Amino acid sequence: MKIKIHFECELQLAAAAPTILQLEAADIPGAQNIESSSLKIEPDVQTEEFLDIYKNPCRRLLMPAGDVRIEYNSVVELPDKRGAFIEPTEPDILHLPTDMLTYTLPSRYCQSDKLVKMANDTFGSITPGFARVQEICNWINENITYQYGTSNSGTSAYETAAERVGVCRDFAHLAITFCRAMNIPARYVSGYCLGLQPPDLHAFFHAYIDGRWVVFDATERQPRPALIQIAAGRDAADCAWSTFYGNGSTRSMQVDVTEIEEEE
Amino acid sequence: MKIKIHFECELQLAAAAPTILQLEAADIPGAQNIESSSLKIEPDVQTEEFLDIYKNPCRRLLMPAGDVRIEYNSVVELPDKRGAFIEPTEPDILHLPTDMLTYTLPSRYCQSDKLVKMANDTFGSITPGFARVQEICNWINENITYQYGTSNSGTSAYETAAERVGVCRDFAHLAITFCRAMNIPARYVSGYCLGLQPPDLHAFFHAYIDGRWVVFDATERQPRPALIQIAAGRDAADCAWSTFYGNGSTRSMQVDVTEIEEEE
Amino acid sequence: MKIKIHFECELQLAAAAPTILQLEAADIPGAQNIESSSLKIEPDVQTEEFLDIYKNPCRRLLMPAGDVRIEYNSVVELPDKRGAFIEPTEPDILHLPTDMLTYTLPSRYCQSDKLVKMANDTFGSITPGFARVQEICNWINENITYQYGTSNSGTSAYETAAERVGVCRDFAHLAITFCRAMNIPARYVSGYCLGLQPPDLHAFFHAYIDGRWVVFDATERQPRPALIQIAAGRDAADCAWSTFYGNGSTRSMQVDVTEIEEEE
Amino acid sequence: MKIKIHFECELQLAAAAPTILQLEAADIPGAQNIESSSLKIEPDVQTEEFLDIYKNPCRRLLMPAGDVRIEYNSVVELPDKRGAFIEPTEPDILHLPTDMLTYTLPSRYCQSDKLVKMANDTFGSITPGFARVQEICNWINENITYQYGTSNSGTSAYETAAERVGVCRDFAHLAITFCRAMNIPARYVSGYCLGLQPPDLHAFFHAYIDGRWVVFDATERQPRPALIQIAAGRDAADCAWSTFYGNGSTRSMQVDVTEIEEEE
Repeated sequence: MKIKIHFECELQLAAAAPTILQLEAADIPGAQNIESSSLKIEPDVQTEEFLDIYKNPCRRLLMPAGDVRIEYNSVVELPDKRGAFIEPTEPDILHLPTDMLTYTLPSRYCQSDKLVKMANDTFGSITPGFARVQEICNWINENITYQYGTSNSGTSAYETAAERVGVCRDFAHLAITFCRAMNIPARYVSGYCLGLQPPDLHAFFHAYIDGRWVVFDATERQPRPALIQIAAGRDAADCAWSTFYGNGSTRSMQVDVTEIEEEE
Repeated sequence: MKIKIHFECELQLAAAAPTILQLEAADIPGAQNIESSSLKIEPDVQTEEFLDIYKNPCRRLLMPAGDVRIEYNSVVELPDKRGAFIEPTEPDILHLPTDMLTYTLPSRYCQSDKLVKMANDTFGSITPGFARVQEICNWINENITYQYGTSNSGTSAYETAAERVGVCRDFAHLAITFCRAMNIPARYVSGYCLGLQPPDLHAFFHAYIDGRWVVFDATERQPRPALIQIAAGRDAADCAWSTFYGNGSTRSMQVDVTEIEEEE
Repeated sequence: MKIKIHFECELQLAAAAPTILQLEAADIPGAQNIESSSLKIEPDVQTEEFLDIYKNPCRRLLMPAGDVRIEYNSVVELPDKRGAFIEPTEPDILHLPTDMLTYTLPSRYCQSDKLVKMANDTFGSITPGFARVQEICNWINENITYQYGTSNSGTSAYETAAERVGVCRDFAHLAITFCRAMNIPARYVSGYCLGLQPPDLHAFFHAYIDGRWVVFDATERQPRPALIQIAAGRDAADCAWSTFYGNGSTRSMQVDVTEIEEEE
Repeated sequence: MKIKIHFECELQLAAAAPTILQLEAADIPGAQNIESSSLKIEPDVQTEEFLDIYKNPCRRLLMPAGDVRIEYNSVVELPDKRGAFIEPTEPDILHLPTDMLTYTLPSRYCQSDKLVKMANDTFGSITPGFARVQEICNWINENITYQYGTSNSGTSAYETAAERVGVCRDFAHLAITFCRAMNIPARYVSGYCLGLQPPDLHAFFHAYIDGRWVVFDATERQPRPALIQIAAGRDAADCAWSTFYGNGSTRSMQVDVTEIEEEE
């Protein structure tokens, strides 16, 4: 499947500010191939590309003062759906690649240390592995109401567990928190998504089962047909599409994700 | 049933401090009759008796500096168990005595405004009235672990709902919060209790159903045989056994509640 | 000074809901005299007047389903400014009227038990009484930024103390919390205010000093010229202008408070 | 300066549990040289050494069920005190090594996103660089009370900022939070410390100024004479001396840190 991504936004900064951008689809050979990609910033400004500690591609720049317009276009090739896979199981902490251990620990928005009992009481009797993480997604779907305006950039999984409303970011944080509370490595993924209404950036998550990261989307019972990863990290703090070290505000943002029908 | 209460404690204050004491069993004609009662403070100090805004009897005094010993003894007559009562139902807010409305609002330890969705999702389909409040107690019993040292005087129902551990005070706060979130007036009750292990002061709650306050104890599936009310209020902030307006600490406390076997 | 108040709002309810209204200026002889007053609800519906446990006048009604319009008009006479008063001092807890003790305790939005150290460190060395409460207002003015949209109906003084942004409600909660943390009885007041930009309902507070409630407004260094009390209670939970026991939303609200120029 | 470290503890596990240990002093050539080191676990069990994502040395093992005793002994050579250094200044985000950017973001115990205003109001006018971070330490010293038993493993900087009590861990978290809120990269360091009363593990922090990590200790106005690093990470979640993936409890722990007097 070929996916066309169009992102544009208008920013306004009172003064020039160092800025990190993390909005381009990642190139993950075999899983997510970037066929073409362009990023345009107006006024024109130099950017420095680098990998963050999680190996996500980022850009650093001095965002100029005044009105700024950013436009990103890309075509991404996603491989065909995998066949039914062998039942993935939860990893043995003793044999987990050690770089994965950090994803079992609590983080800013995922206080897994505080929800250990809730997680174990609710999911402790489910078969470990894929089934358990899927049940976490199902439970969140049934118990958390998706509603814009009910949470903000400070909202964490601890609050979502009690208040039971939120948006995709909160859904992902709560799912990750439950996974970690049960010693399943889990990480937050920011990305683009086909068919989202209204169109927006999306948040989903990865659970490490069966020796690899498996995609889950707590806002749907099934992962949506095309989830395109931008960045993966401990939680939303690691994956903001823009981080201004200064005062900036986003005046408008538009995201379009469409499937390119291939001609026969 | 006749119950003998013995309470004693040793305090130590760096300086004399105005203090409110709320540790004597309330005299509730027909429901809880005080047969005898004595309160001794050493060194001897005058106390002023008054009713707080909830009509709970209290004493105000200037607690002297240094070591203080308080001893309270009482014999309380509890009427025989009531017969099975007509199914109590939840009150219609429109016809509720207006003094009860305050018990539908959130308070310091009972943030019922934040748990509306959890309460409705969990208990919304249960038959209103006695059955619903009883189910709230059952749910708390099954889902919250009773464990000393897991909470403190700052812990509120919001935290207990997420962390799922606590003591009697936390159990009562969470039950009250769920009731209020569903528009059932509920209040916190501090008191003495027969058969508590280890012996201690106790916390339980009242829900207003069928036109009167009905006793519930979220730490047990059934209200214990002898619950003796000291004070009732919005939550533990209104019912502290002692409130020092100064620096004081309790060095030791002992509570004994025993049934007086009546001779034939 | 004569003040004309006009309040109107449009509500929309999915189903009829028991509702408490607390939006009429209180009649406080000598301090706030109601010269005329009318409340109109469309469609017409019967209301029951009562006093809540704090003696605030309230109305209870069954708010009908669909669109509802409420209009309230009143003329209030405020006495001339008092002359400079004798230095009001903080009350001795031992001789405080006992009904005031409840206003020294923590409540839903005023966790004074948690800010004892901050309050004492910041205000402990200020002369007790009027000067101290005024300094609390000054400190809040200097340290908290007034900004719409930074807080919501769940925000409490604990959060405002850390995050340092809020609206009048948050300013009042924080001031009350600091007062109580220092054993000064303090209560929340909802009301109307002359000259507020943009026009809105207002929140201010009372501190009990020198044997009476003294008005303070933490959003200004001086109490504004005309503050008209609707209700007073522990915090905003006790003084909501409307409490729906059901699902209702306010579609629009308009408040006008003007001074009536008296003819010579 | 030569420092001798002795650590021992007794654990009890209901069942064998995968465990990460992070209690050995790090070998940092030039800054902290390990002269000798031994780790003994009874009963004897194999451990796997690895570096975590922050490059801290760790050990992974299957901690056996029942009673376990761990003993660690080491001699560490610390270089002589550096001379007065050139005034270190705060980094320019644009030229900061990109691996440092993660230390400007909020984390589990350091919600720097929520304390931006408090940090800027309190420290915004201080000369950037060493002076500013030192002032953060001074402010914490003056405003936070060091007291055992006032915080626990769930306590975060947000709470410490409001409640103003804590232990070394909380002091470090709050200092790091203030640094990050002002865009100064800062990280948590667990370690051993000479002269701590009572002897215990210690927590301090690093701020990235003048192109390198500089040591600060928010519990003292001056960094103590001998601070020995075990691990550095975003906050305490990354640097726990032991992480049990199962149920274990520490029954006793003893730490001795002494200076070895060198013979002439």
